[in-house]
Amino acid sequence: MATSQESLEGGSIVWIDCKSIAKSIEEDVRKRVDLLSFTPKLVSVVGTDDPSTASYLRSQKKKAEKLGIDFEIIKTSPGDFLSTLEKLAEDKNVNGVFVARPLPEGLDEKRVFSAVPVEKDVEGVNPENLGFLLYGEETFPPCTAEAVVKVLESVTEISGKKVTIVGRSVTVGKPLAIMLLKKGRDATVTVCHSRTQNLGEITRASDIVVVAVGKAHFLKRDMVKEGAIVIDVGINYVDGKWCGDVDSAVEEIAQVTPVPGGVGQITTALLFEHVVRAAERQKA
Amino acid sequence: MATSQESLEGGSIVWIDCKSIAKSIEEDVRKRVDLLSFTPKLVSVVGTDDPSTASYLRSQKKKAEKLGIDFEIIKTSPGDFLSTLEKLAEDKNVNGVFVARPLPEGLDEKRVFSAVPVEKDVEGVNPENLGFLLYGEETFPPCTAEAVVKVLESVTEISGKKVTIVGRSVTVGKPLAIMLLKKGRDATVTVCHSRTQNLGEITRASDIVVVAVGKAHFLKRDMVKEGAIVIDVGINYVDGKWCGDVDSAVEEIAQVTPVPGGVGQITTALLFEHVVRAAERQKA
Repeated sequence: MATSQESLEGGSIVWIDCKSIAKSIEEDVRKRVDLLSFTPKLVSVVGTDDPSTASYLRSQKKKAEKLGIDFEIIKTSPGDFLSTLEKLAEDKNVNGVFVARPLPEGLDEKRVFSAVPVEKDVEGVNPENLGFLLYGEETFPPCTAEAVVKVLESVTEISGKKVTIVGRSVTVGKPLAIMLLKKGRDATVTVCHSRTQNLGEITRASDIVVVAVGKAHFLKRDMVKEGAIVIDVGINYVDGKWCGDVDSAVEEIAQVTPVPGGVGQITTALLFEHVVRAAERQKA
Repeated sequence: MATSQESLEGGSIVWIDCKSIAKSIEEDVRKRVDLLSFTPKLVSVVGTDDPSTASYLRSQKKKAEKLGIDFEIIKTSPGDFLSTLEKLAEDKNVNGVFVARPLPEGLDEKRVFSAVPVEKDVEGVNPENLGFLLYGEETFPPCTAEAVVKVLESVTEISGKKVTIVGRSVTVGKPLAIMLLKKGRDATVTVCHSRTQNLGEITRASDIVVVAVGKAHFLKRDMVKEGAIVIDVGINYVDGKWCGDVDSAVEEIAQVTPVPGGVGQITTALLFEHVVRAAERQKA
């Protein structure tokens, strides 16, 4: 079981150890990069001047360097967005294509993500890759959803468990539900959202709760069963500090993933694992 | 509310009236066929000698004639299956392509369904069309899942309701979960299956139960809350009679869709509605 203990004011909090999961994925990535006869390359396409996107892309660049993967950022105008993606589809030196969010205003999300070449879709945004999930095929699953699956597989037996996912996004809630229902994983899955009634009753009856709503302190202690596993997918910046969607009191009764240093770093590791996977498949 | 009453041994059973839903879809189809400058055409591709498939295709043919839609069955060998689909993709006289199940042995389901041309995929089996569902776009949703949504929308306000789907197939359970979660529909959705523990407890706590497991008498009266809405997607042949997955005692306490004469006929009507939709889009 991948957990780590931290003593806090006399009590003992059991964190789920996401660092070691991320580390082992990164080690695997480095080994597989070495086995390739070429250096794999990721291109991130960005269409806005959003400062948090720029900061995220800088950290992508750093991680790429660390893992031995070539990295390029292409800044493009809304009008050239689709043609840029078409060129990247043709470019044999590019193995993975990442589209930075937010998209420039006026661009249709579905049209843009459909234009990300399926075999270079390392983020799992192309409808075809999402549709494959329903057939149980996870070629390029959305990285965050896959990160949650990895965490759960490292701390528990998922089969037969009651899992509640709070949040129905196309990057986390919906694909994660499909992935946890996959034969062999066999979770019983409930998806809740802003229109759900009696949310606390539903989460309290769950063995596992995944929260991806983007609201600090959203999941309170009285919404969680003692001994439950809680996966915190939120990233919120409050009072000069990063925190997740889970209120800190939950840690006293449940196993929780930390934020920062939790699911996010596994997500990033998996993005690069997908770049290597794409390179291996394109070579083959 | 689309319901019909039947007096039975002194009691009163409230059936959900699926016939009138199917009828109104068919009327709409006929009108839209008349507005086209050409006769839309559906081709069903079949690879086996399965007798129940043959019987189903005969009923497709009858329905197509009734609705003014051209219909052709192409029998093909496993080796020619994919090239047949490619030819149908090119054929401008063909608006909709249906692939009959079961597929011939040895064919990979995902490869075959990926080869169904996206814009002629009237059954909603191509991964790209399934993936679009996650983006909230229902161009060609799987017909049975869409039929369930139509029934629910005709008898209740879905928003905020607890819906439990029993069955996680790629034709019903998984796409239906995604469709009911869509913004505006806003159901809270749980998906159960053969590995679910305490199933009865989960279904009993639900406002709406959808059963798609293919087992006669599967959903018993003690698994359903009084006044619940129950959608029976099963079709089973037992002792010379067709029946669904819902035990007849459930009808005494819940609103149930009948089998036969329930969801199935709406599914067929929607298949032809998709053929017209495809024809309209291809013309445009």
